[in-house]
Amino acid sequence: MDKHGLKGLVFPRWAIGKFLETLPQLIEVAGGLRKADLVVRNVNLVDVAGGRVVGNVSIVAYSGFITALVSASDDKVYIGPSTMVINGGGSYAAPGFIDAHVHVETSFLRPSEFSKLALMHGTTMIVTDPHDIANAGGLKHLLAFTEEAIRQPLKVLVQVPSCVPPTRSEVDNPGYTLSVKDVEELLDSGLFHSLGEFMDYASVVNRDPEALGKIKAALLRGMLIYGHLPSPDDRVLNAYSSLGASSCHESTSLDEALGKLTHGMWVMLRFGSAWRDGEVILPGLIKGGYDLDRVILVTDDVSVMDLVEHGYMDRVVKDAVELGLDPVDAVKLVTINPATYLRLDNLVGVLAPGRLADIVLLRDLRGLEVDTVVVNGNVAYHNGQLMLRDFQETGTLTSLGLTFNIPVIRGLDDLAVRVGEDYSEALVLAIGVEYGVTVTRKVKVKVPVVNGIAAPNPDSDVAYVAVIDKYRAGGVGKGFVTGLGLRRGALAQSMGRDTHNILVIGADLGDMYTALRELERIRGGVVAVSNGEVKCRLRLSIGGLMSNEPFTKVYHEAKCLEDFLRYCGAPNPRMAPFHISILTLTVIPEVRVTPKGLVDVKSLTIINPILEVR
Amino acid sequence: MDKHGLKGLVFPRWAIGKFLETLPQLIEVAGGLRKADLVVRNVNLVDVAGGRVVGNVSIVAYSGFITALVSASDDKVYIGPSTMVINGGGSYAAPGFIDAHVHVETSFLRPSEFSKLALMHGTTMIVTDPHDIANAGGLKHLLAFTEEAIRQPLKVLVQVPSCVPPTRSEVDNPGYTLSVKDVEELLDSGLFHSLGEFMDYASVVNRDPEALGKIKAALLRGMLIYGHLPSPDDRVLNAYSSLGASSCHESTSLDEALGKLTHGMWVMLRFGSAWRDGEVILPGLIKGGYDLDRVILVTDDVSVMDLVEHGYMDRVVKDAVELGLDPVDAVKLVTINPATYLRLDNLVGVLAPGRLADIVLLRDLRGLEVDTVVVNGNVAYHNGQLMLRDFQETGTLTSLGLTFNIPVIRGLDDLAVRVGEDYSEALVLAIGVEYGVTVTRKVKVKVPVVNGIAAPNPDSDVAYVAVIDKYRAGGVGKGFVTGLGLRRGALAQSMGRDTHNILVIGADLGDMYTALRELERIRGGVVAVSNGEVKCRLRLSIGGLMSNEPFTKVYHEAKCLEDFLRYCGAPNPRMAPFHISILTLTVIPEVRVTPKGLVDVKSLTIINPILEVR
Repeated sequence: MDKHGLKGLVFPRWAIGKFLETLPQLIEVAGGLRKADLVVRNVNLVDVAGGRVVGNVSIVAYSGFITALVSASDDKVYIGPSTMVINGGGSYAAPGFIDAHVHVETSFLRPSEFSKLALMHGTTMIVTDPHDIANAGGLKHLLAFTEEAIRQPLKVLVQVPSCVPPTRSEVDNPGYTLSVKDVEELLDSGLFHSLGEFMDYASVVNRDPEALGKIKAALLRGMLIYGHLPSPDDRVLNAYSSLGASSCHESTSLDEALGKLTHGMWVMLRFGSAWRDGEVILPGLIKGGYDLDRVILVTDDVSVMDLVEHGYMDRVVKDAVELGLDPVDAVKLVTINPATYLRLDNLVGVLAPGRLADIVLLRDLRGLEVDTVVVNGNVAYHNGQLMLRDFQETGTLTSLGLTFNIPVIRGLDDLAVRVGEDYSEALVLAIGVEYGVTVTRKVKVKVPVVNGIAAPNPDSDVAYVAVIDKYRAGGVGKGFVTGLGLRRGALAQSMGRDTHNILVIGADLGDMYTALRELERIRGGVVAVSNGEVKCRLRLSIGGLMSNEPFTKVYHEAKCLEDFLRYCGAPNPRMAPFHISILTLTVIPEVRVTPKGLVDVKSLTIINPILEVR
Repeated sequence: MDKHGLKGLVFPRWAIGKFLETLPQLIEVAGGLRKADLVVRNVNLVDVAGGRVVGNVSIVAYSGFITALVSASDDKVYIGPSTMVINGGGSYAAPGFIDAHVHVETSFLRPSEFSKLALMHGTTMIVTDPHDIANAGGLKHLLAFTEEAIRQPLKVLVQVPSCVPPTRSEVDNPGYTLSVKDVEELLDSGLFHSLGEFMDYASVVNRDPEALGKIKAALLRGMLIYGHLPSPDDRVLNAYSSLGASSCHESTSLDEALGKLTHGMWVMLRFGSAWRDGEVILPGLIKGGYDLDRVILVTDDVSVMDLVEHGYMDRVVKDAVELGLDPVDAVKLVTINPATYLRLDNLVGVLAPGRLADIVLLRDLRGLEVDTVVVNGNVAYHNGQLMLRDFQETGTLTSLGLTFNIPVIRGLDDLAVRVGEDYSEALVLAIGVEYGVTVTRKVKVKVPVVNGIAAPNPDSDVAYVAVIDKYRAGGVGKGFVTGLGLRRGALAQSMGRDTHNILVIGADLGDMYTALRELERIRGGVVAVSNGEVKCRLRLSIGGLMSNEPFTKVYHEAKCLEDFLRYCGAPNPRMAPFHISILTLTVIPEVRVTPKGLVDVKSLTIINPILEVR
């Protein structure tokens, strides 16, 4: 599978090779017998292993690796004419931050652009499960994404998506499938770090041979498996935790998180752009005095808006500190903890000899203002400026198209739910959304029937949603959504997680149809329409998920979308796109919609959204 | 190297195979669809992941693996007619204890006998570096030891000894050498877990190609390297920690331990029979509020006396609790912490689904009285009785002989230091021993010259020591020792770490000679003599290090030795044998003795023990 020798670019492989090659010189530098490449002088070292701050330290590095920690007064012996010296001036030096679970695609940015923003915010490593691009375009798209990801100065550990399609049930209408054999070949390619979040917990509990085959493939190769287990009952928790899934990032309450810890899973708390369960759980963990050794902070999804305006893992650390966590502990939860979980603490996650020189200089430990970022011994960011230039875009990713085939929609009528001319009102089962959490609830609401069509009811916050099979010119699933606060306008988008069929949502059926046609014309992305007029176009030409443009341009397009959602009435216009995108995600309770129809997630059956008409 | 297919017996290989084979059934049991093999009812679960105790839990296991943790009131669904039920009765259930660093040989017990005592005391896994037997007999002895070790119900993770001989310097006189190629073959054999403690730190700092070759061999294979770095200065600490040695168990002070943590090493604190640095360091770590995530408690060496009379890791936990450590934290330091360090926390170290059912039931968390021990789902120990029978002795280990060839000693005179008839007193550089710590100090003391021989001076606690090359009928190294408190008698022994030449020590030269001759007659072990009479014989026929006898018999022989040392005046007769054994160990400062003579460890040069005569 690795025809082009790409695996030599993959972390940690390249790092181990380089380390072994330069080990004698590293020891020489450590011993003062050879000058360093880089000395970061006089910092307050955030010692994440001992859980303390050590003052007046200089960090000595050579060939990308830290070789010595010395008292700032003793560092002159390491400095020669060609040594780069960064004066820390008493700032705090933390290990490069790690986001152990993020889907790059949902930022709308390709890996090269994502990497820039990550490094600017002190994040030097991410673990990404590209199941969105894999679901949208299969093996070809997955490999194109991976090839670009592993070429970045940001360490991008790519996972083999475990659930393409997301579930094995009949309720979904996926475009692509990764078989056990595909997964085995991917795991053997040397390009991937681990098996991505095993979302299809129902197949595990049901001992589905495909699911168990993928799990065995990973375990036999000694590779980690990420878990995904939202709101389990005791039996499901026991069954699922038996399989060796080593982490879960789906907890939404303190009890749920504690239960997973006790059941042997590492618990990832979300502080992303949309899912903020961490805010609910972390204060309880702190207050209860529970051990945080196996707790990690992640984003899961992060928007380009937040990346540009508020930061990345630096913001997560700041959020955790504001919730009452000791700053050194907060840094641990995004450095040594994920590094230990990932079994890479010999190379990253701690500022110590033998580790890569991934260093974040912070003006202080509360404001978390990033001053300088060093990655692999090179200055990546300094004083507001991105210093690196080697963010490689690959042509294979740029040129990925989008399958977009929806002849079933010939007019507005094909989108709508027709209940009959004789009625004036319908009681419907809507998807109830709550901002900040991934789970949805079944909510009964009333909508008007207009010309025989069950219409959205903007006044009582009931929007209408349709999902159209883009792969087989197949079905249209229809439903209602409440809780988003959409009181006017419509959106059409090619991101409907994780199968990425075409999703249209709105308070007005006519606007929805207009948006859909414009989306078809631009071939992928997000289109916003109000009063029959296109207000925003966010073009996502890479598999319908990611933009080909620089992050600054994507940011402005996404800002248009955010302003539009605010204008539509969404109380949290930044979170709304994420909530809309996962209306189609059948691996999180309680109710979703696919091209097959409205889905009861627990039973994985199709249900009728219309409960009653009169 | 693995001609007999032994690697299938090695943990974790067998466990992963068994787990994958039974995964569907494990999920069935977890889900209540199939009855369990074993239910441990109603315990207080020591939750080492969350750092808490969870009451009223039942632990459900099948085919050796834990599959569910349930409320004690809900466990009936798991219990069928053939389910074994252990009523916990509210006792505390902890994960099986782990000793992450121990040399089995120094207990005088072979692996099968050691395993019995370990399991009786709640220890279900050890990591052992058999560098003693490898130094004593080379590859053949190492493999014979390993073959027996991996066959025990105690999980014995065997390491490839990295330093055979202990140093590459000329000051040692080893019998055997493991080359880089030997190490590579051993690492590839599938029989070993990791590379054992890299004691030869001088060769690392000097970038010796042999040393770096072994380190590279382990790192290329993704295997852990244990460190060993006593009392380093800053440069040595930086140089040594650059190499990726992931732990160190040699710290003797809080500052030293903190320095190693900051430099990225896991810190192992010793609570063994002789080295009690943990008692010095742990209270400081607790008081300072430092993080203990990367701290592990080990024994390094443990005597059969302590194993029988006081216990093993159960005693270590108790010691730590008595020093002020919270009991749950103390359990963590011998369970989940070492399991995480060893990258085996998916299989051991935590009582959670998917892990092996290695369970210790304790009456309480302070007295640490072990009631029941379950290993791999089988009851190993219950109510004072060892329940398992499968402690296999292997013939290859039993039949190992001992090279013992010392024709250079023809009489008492060949042992002694002759300074000349004209003198009456000598100022000598003695090896200064301090009970409880491994390092020695240079101490200047006066001894009488009797008939031209520099004699021991029992009245001022100066004993005499000689080390005789047993491999090449070569040299005799001579020196003096102070601090042991030996005021009469003599010992001869075939354990002189780590090269295991013949060591004789005593307060009386005549007794020393008698002891040596008796040791030659019994071909290995320890012989104690006083007033010309043999008082104890501890026969160690396996490579001169381990006994062929059951632990009960070895215990009685070791007790004789202890009583003898007490009679000789040793204030700590239980620790004394360990201190005597490492008088020859040239990888720990400050001064040692080998067949080449007295060794200054820092400079690795031979020095004259006689400073002045008059």
